[in-house]
Amino acid sequence: VNQPFKQEKEITYFMCDRTNRLTLSMLVNILMDVSEKHSAYLGTGEEVVKGMGYNWIILHYEFQIEKIPKVNERVEIETIATEYNKLFTYRDFIVRGKDNNEIITVKTTFALMDLEKRKMARLPEEIIAPYQATFSKRIRRNTKPQPVDNERASQKVYSVRYFDIDSNNHVNNSQYINWLLDSMDGTFLATHTVKHGIITFDKEVNEEDTVTSSSSRRVANNSITDHQITVDGTIHATASFHWDTA
Amino acid sequence: VNQPFKQEKEITYFMCDRTNRLTLSMLVNILMDVSEKHSAYLGTGEEVVKGMGYNWIILHYEFQIEKIPKVNERVEIETIATEYNKLFTYRDFIVRGKDNNEIITVKTTFALMDLEKRKMARLPEEIIAPYQATFSKRIRRNTKPQPVDNERASQKVYSVRYFDIDSNNHVNNSQYINWLLDSMDGTFLATHTVKHGIITFDKEVNEEDTVTSSSSRRVANNSITDHQITVDGTIHATASFHWDTA
Repeated sequence: VNQPFKQEKEITYFMCDRTNRLTLSMLVNILMDVSEKHSAYLGTGEEVVKGMGYNWIILHYEFQIEKIPKVNERVEIETIATEYNKLFTYRDFIVRGKDNNEIITVKTTFALMDLEKRKMARLPEEIIAPYQATFSKRIRRNTKPQPVDNERASQKVYSVRYFDIDSNNHVNNSQYINWLLDSMDGTFLATHTVKHGIITFDKEVNEEDTVTSSSSRRVANNSITDHQITVDGTIHATASFHWDTA
Repeated sequence: VNQPFKQEKEITYFMCDRTNRLTLSMLVNILMDVSEKHSAYLGTGEEVVKGMGYNWIILHYEFQIEKIPKVNERVEIETIATEYNKLFTYRDFIVRGKDNNEIITVKTTFALMDLEKRKMARLPEEIIAPYQATFSKRIRRNTKPQPVDNERASQKVYSVRYFDIDSNNHVNNSQYINWLLDSMDGTFLATHTVKHGIITFDKEVNEEDTVTSSSSRRVANNSITDHQITVDGTIHATASFHWDTA
């Protein structure tokens, strides 16, 4: 049977925002770090995957956040590759805080990019087998964010910066999250935290791109916001977040 | 006598650039983290200092980099508060890599900001005594960066983003470093590493500011670059970096 993989992390000040809470982008960074360590432990780390001509991409996140950790807290991160089909593999994360309480769960969908063809690849047995995840033909229908209400949206434009690009030569996922949130009003961000969120990654953002980040609050429920990242009018990422007062 | 304080750090992928090398801004983040832990260990952590109406600010960094760590390396960071006078305290850092070799040394100048007056304060005995640093009347003359050559400078403009602001309510030092470097040519950055650097922080950058980052390579020695951050024509930070091919 497949084994979960666990690692402890300390929440340092540089992972936190002005309110000393872990940022969503740094949460993703530390989850991805544990995920990569899990793969390396199983002998299928980034270098092995790259050596076969692939890299992992993430298509979807779903966050359920009971309590966001604050600076100096120690958390335990558990991850497990739960299930896969010919194109996707599903990985769950559980973050535990003090007294071993579950404070965050995150469900993710990974796929393999063929580096030469720049297209998604069928998951090769050598890469997927070590996780001992369950094979299931079923392709999950991930919940999709709602479209941004353009009439009511606030919008900001960003040039990609040198340090936004990671070793896969495109913009790191965590940077999309900064753009998605930064388009919002600062006072709202400083007084609210995300309780639930979904993010889809639809297209890579490259070094020469100029991205537009738009967000709007729903009329029917103004504790929910919808977000999108576009490049030349094409959607590259979308998100919806459910907020609570901090 | 004053004791150095040490901590091990692992260089994770999110601390690295596209070439898998630790970024200068993340180096500063982890040094500051160790510095803060040293203070907390001595009972004069951020909360105590804030409770007295102050926070620490950094005025000057001088980096000497033999070898920049790469992803997955473990380093040991040692810090010691060496000396102080009525306004400044000097803190050194040594980063050691494999086989305990010194790979980076950093000299820093700290001062205390009076949060109410928004001015530098005399260092109170209660805050400075626990470090057991040496008192010396002498105020160091830190090496200053050379001015940017405006005729030959490349320049970029940045709006401050929500997540650039830290719990001291101004832009975190490490963000200045991203701006200072991002104004340079990407191909140069991808093929060179900093061997020596000096950075001065002259004025805070605030949330509503638009900053201009300019940099130029010296005519007399094109392995040295000079940098500045300005807001409305006023200099907020300067830097000079000596580069080597990566």
